[in-house]
Amino acid sequence: MSEKLTSREENYSQWYQDLVIKADLAENSAVRGCMVIKPYGYAIWEKMQQELDRRFKETGHVNAYFPLFIPKSFFSKEASHVEGFAKECAVVTHYRLKNDPNGGGIIVDEEAKLEEELIVRPTSETIIWHTYRGWIESYRDLPILVNQWANVVRWEMRTRLFLRTAEFLWQEGHTAHATAEDAVEETVKMLNVYADFAENILAIPVVKGMKSPNERFAGAIDTYCIEALMQDGKALQAGTSHFLGQNFAKAFDVKFTTKEGKREYVWATSWGVSTRLMGALVMAHSDDLGLVLPPRLAPIQVVIVPIFKSEQQLYAINEKVAELKKALEKKGISVKYDNRDTYKPGWKFAEYELKGVPVRIAIGPRDLENGTVEVARRDTQEKAVYQMTDLHIKVEHLLEQIQENIYRKALDFREEKTYRADSWEEFLDILDNKGGFVYAHWDGTTETEVKIKEFSKATIRCIPLDNQPEDGKCILTGNPSGQRVLFARAY
Amino acid sequence: MSEKLTSREENYSQWYQDLVIKADLAENSAVRGCMVIKPYGYAIWEKMQQELDRRFKETGHVNAYFPLFIPKSFFSKEASHVEGFAKECAVVTHYRLKNDPNGGGIIVDEEAKLEEELIVRPTSETIIWHTYRGWIESYRDLPILVNQWANVVRWEMRTRLFLRTAEFLWQEGHTAHATAEDAVEETVKMLNVYADFAENILAIPVVKGMKSPNERFAGAIDTYCIEALMQDGKALQAGTSHFLGQNFAKAFDVKFTTKEGKREYVWATSWGVSTRLMGALVMAHSDDLGLVLPPRLAPIQVVIVPIFKSEQQLYAINEKVAELKKALEKKGISVKYDNRDTYKPGWKFAEYELKGVPVRIAIGPRDLENGTVEVARRDTQEKAVYQMTDLHIKVEHLLEQIQENIYRKALDFREEKTYRADSWEEFLDILDNKGGFVYAHWDGTTETEVKIKEFSKATIRCIPLDNQPEDGKCILTGNPSGQRVLFARAY
Repeated sequence: MSEKLTSREENYSQWYQDLVIKADLAENSAVRGCMVIKPYGYAIWEKMQQELDRRFKETGHVNAYFPLFIPKSFFSKEASHVEGFAKECAVVTHYRLKNDPNGGGIIVDEEAKLEEELIVRPTSETIIWHTYRGWIESYRDLPILVNQWANVVRWEMRTRLFLRTAEFLWQEGHTAHATAEDAVEETVKMLNVYADFAENILAIPVVKGMKSPNERFAGAIDTYCIEALMQDGKALQAGTSHFLGQNFAKAFDVKFTTKEGKREYVWATSWGVSTRLMGALVMAHSDDLGLVLPPRLAPIQVVIVPIFKSEQQLYAINEKVAELKKALEKKGISVKYDNRDTYKPGWKFAEYELKGVPVRIAIGPRDLENGTVEVARRDTQEKAVYQMTDLHIKVEHLLEQIQENIYRKALDFREEKTYRADSWEEFLDILDNKGGFVYAHWDGTTETEVKIKEFSKATIRCIPLDNQPEDGKCILTGNPSGQRVLFARAY
Repeated sequence: MSEKLTSREENYSQWYQDLVIKADLAENSAVRGCMVIKPYGYAIWEKMQQELDRRFKETGHVNAYFPLFIPKSFFSKEASHVEGFAKECAVVTHYRLKNDPNGGGIIVDEEAKLEEELIVRPTSETIIWHTYRGWIESYRDLPILVNQWANVVRWEMRTRLFLRTAEFLWQEGHTAHATAEDAVEETVKMLNVYADFAENILAIPVVKGMKSPNERFAGAIDTYCIEALMQDGKALQAGTSHFLGQNFAKAFDVKFTTKEGKREYVWATSWGVSTRLMGALVMAHSDDLGLVLPPRLAPIQVVIVPIFKSEQQLYAINEKVAELKKALEKKGISVKYDNRDTYKPGWKFAEYELKGVPVRIAIGPRDLENGTVEVARRDTQEKAVYQMTDLHIKVEHLLEQIQENIYRKALDFREEKTYRADSWEEFLDILDNKGGFVYAHWDGTTETEVKIKEFSKATIRCIPLDNQPEDGKCILTGNPSGQRVLFARAY
């Protein structure tokens, strides 16, 4: 915490990288593209997991665990799926090491070659649908509503902490249904769970929509997504929910007997969010002083710093703080009291700003006399003097206000940065000079979508679910269009 | 749930396998040696995780996450470590698949060969100590008390669901300390956490002890363990805690500056338990009717089954049950009401016996009239008629009694099956004809230990921590011995 962060204005990308490392969220490991998630970062991820897991269970889902490895032949069974993932797979080919008889140290034992290579899962549709074949016989076995918390590997060439890593942590829901309607309903339900989580816990407003065919998940009929806007005006896909139709059921021959006694293929969904959300969290709210964490995700919600010169002063403060801390903790608020004498208050203030602790309470000898404390909010940097009476109730309300304010600020930012473009020039001007979300007409063809991306580096983030029909002309081709879609440059 | 389980007497090993599958705990997957943990099994594992995680945090530990892959060269750095794990490693050699130009389907792209092979972690000491090098500068950075929940892979040749699988789930604690004393204290502290968890949550009594040098973890100075006895008289190692000395600090050059300004190597521990505990849980308590789950781990603690002939009767029962269920749930008891009309009560009784639900409540029209219910305990198979008044309080007490009784029964069994052998003949006779734990004298040499194993298939499970010195003669060699050690045949 000695050197200052790079500012967002100076270099947004460097600011992000610096912040993730200095705030002790994560670091690069010795393995290319794989990160170490440090305890402070992991504590935030655990809070995300708890909130998500509760929502999954409330909507009737159960957790299970499927193998890390997928036989290579499974991939080939769903054509577009293998097309989508084959280029970035970690492949296990051997199962033993040995001492090099020529003294070259430890080497792979060529005699221990697998008959069929195993792929480290990049996603688990194939191994899970192979398994579901044994679980599904009749309509009585449906729906299957299963989620898995797991690590997955995609051999990305250019990686960035949390945003794009070779290994990442995620959850993947995989459900099986008797009808297309049930599966679509599930797909949308989980999209709504993600949106609710993003807005109420991450404090990040999101646009719910459907991907264009070109941006669909490999193997899906429809991909729904939530899209968020980062402070540099770039979009970030924060979660996806896929209606898979009968594609995987057909690939793995999973049929069920209907109430009427017919044999039909099962309908599927899958949906996931990952440690990428950690990146979204950082980029959506933080500032040049460090993290700004929404209270609902902050591992430490309140930090108390004593201001003292003598040991006697510290002793008196310790006593008072013990009482205040107890009252706050009774409210379920996580409190850290940092009374180390090896660091000065100013150092501590900067440290907890960097770490994004939502509320800081400072208390000195004069506060003890007056029955007051100084309360500082991380989000607005405002300070105020509070009477100690009922401090726990005031702080509880303050935390709620901060949560709300962080969301409101992100929402205001997004609204300010949301534009409508009616010509190609206008479209480019917004992207180059303002950044943000751009609603524009598109002729609906993949050809045009690809060209727009090539010429502008912007992609169709989604076709928003709340879209209103509107006649217009495609910004690139001038061909007729029935609605605007959401464009942005994206992570 | 149609066919009966194999009985324990008939074939203990088959009984275990049948039970794990029929009770929906886990099944074999398409990948050799890797299992699918099914939702019911995973729900039990989640309860274990919660209990352990809470204990880890209460003892000052935090969670983090380290990479799945370990560079091959890291393994070679600690000699005995690589010796212990090299023979059973999954090795990643390539990072891309491609279409075979000769039409042979999807194949490994030979151009995407890794410069250095990556090992799928069998345990994470090496990658973690490599990382700690960047975290530790001075004594102020110590101790580091980190735990990781993760999947690991050991390419075992003969696998059995939960007990020995190529991939398994576990937690691994990795701590760093300034002194040997601190590290040993941590090692013993975590052994005690495991023992407390095993006895109070799993309801399995354990012997705490230290492994003989021959049975130590690869890279440890001392390995502490908890050993449990299964119903077939075989031992099962249920958790280990290792004092690693400075072995890994030396291998990865991790030094710290002491208060006195000297540079010294850091002291280490590691400790872990895995999904193997699921196997222990099944084998310690269950019977020929199915699982017997301790209430503290049962995903469903109480099942309520209505007994009815008419819809009208069911309607009246539903109403009463809603009220009882609410009161039970207010006590934090998990309750399932199974009022399906597609299955008969007898079928349901057998189903929930198989699943190990601790308490079953049956309620029929006559019960409604009398204000009673029939309560059946899974552990003793006893039934009793209870007045409905304060049923939630009675059931809460009953669950506690069951937890206690299951532990007591396992403890009685162990005590009954714990022997002292003073000659080789006696030793073999016990192992062959009785099974169980055998306390016997051993001359302390690895040579003798290996021979005893060869001749008897029994291993030294541990040198119990509460051992009393006792002069005697080694059962094999007759050489002098200062204490008895604990032998058994083991999983």
